[in-house]
Amino acid sequence: MNSDADPRFQRSRQAILSAARALLLEKGPVAVTHAQVAERAGVGRATVYRHWPRSDELLAEAMATVPMPLLDNPTAPTRQWLTRELTTLAEQLALADVRAVATTLASTALWDQQMDARRAQFATILAERLAGALDAAQDRGEVTLAVPVRDAAAFLVGPIYYRSTIEHGPAGSTLIETLIAAIGAWSAP
Amino acid sequence: MNSDADPRFQRSRQAILSAARALLLEKGPVAVTHAQVAERAGVGRATVYRHWPRSDELLAEAMATVPMPLLDNPTAPTRQWLTRELTTLAEQLALADVRAVATTLASTALWDQQMDARRAQFATILAERLAGALDAAQDRGEVTLAVPVRDAAAFLVGPIYYRSTIEHGPAGSTLIETLIAAIGAWSAP
Repeated sequence: MNSDADPRFQRSRQAILSAARALLLEKGPVAVTHAQVAERAGVGRATVYRHWPRSDELLAEAMATVPMPLLDNPTAPTRQWLTRELTTLAEQLALADVRAVATTLASTALWDQQMDARRAQFATILAERLAGALDAAQDRGEVTLAVPVRDAAAFLVGPIYYRSTIEHGPAGSTLIETLIAAIGAWSAP
Repeated sequence: MNSDADPRFQRSRQAILSAARALLLEKGPVAVTHAQVAERAGVGRATVYRHWPRSDELLAEAMATVPMPLLDNPTAPTRQWLTRELTTLAEQLALADVRAVATTLASTALWDQQMDARRAQFATILAERLAGALDAAQDRGEVTLAVPVRDAAAFLVGPIYYRSTIEHGPAGSTLIETLIAAIGAWSAP
């Protein structure tokens, strides 16, 4: 009946995804049901079922429309790159939609394999990018690390994540500079 | 009809709370519905409604039966107290029930005032206890802090929380010792 090329099909798909994302941000993941999404999107419930037979898959796809904070490719000097990237990450984690997706991901990952795969992918990208950048910085003589590189993401991102999701406050420049200074002895710029 | 003193009322209340907690751990907060809790507890759905007219309040009360990691009252020497308390906190956050409650709390706090009050209380206890202990340690000459005391909880608890809830790994003694060493210059014991 419907096909991916049908413009009406594409339009209702976009309307459903937007409605699911809006419900997640306003009321949380429990509100992303076929009935509530249909009402918000102004389509019939059968249409929602046709696109997403399962509401957990609709939730996952709505969450995927929110860009999650990652780290850009490292550049030297590493200390300036870290300051810039951690500041951006803190600003993103202060946004309501990113905070909603991050906490929903951490929670649903415990009970949903697809969500857990996304959680693991997110954690791995941050961990590998930080470990790679700090390893290279140490090789270049920029820093002598006080932290094993495998702990760098927990050490640097963990406090910003905790400040945002548990303490509900901003991770300011003092916290970010303190973390970067504490990860090792930096040589003078 | 029923009263708090009625032993049958108390028994069904306990059965419902246990069922709600088991469902939360096995399937997540979305499974804590009147219907599923009634089935698991072996009581009628009307009985669940009589005790908890709202399922979000039942979820909150089931979550409150899981003891959350806090910090015991500080003792000197502070460095040993920190090692002991952060090790306990990491062990607790590695437990499935504590991890389920912590991530559910962080997520539901965004949309539920009662949950948000519990989140804030949890964050405040950890922050005040750490700030108080580290302030006193600095006054006694045990440590010269590299981190503002208001950031101590994010700095020390954040990485352990991130390791548990995002990286799904254990926060081992290396990470804990690195964090304690990085928070300031400790005088020789």
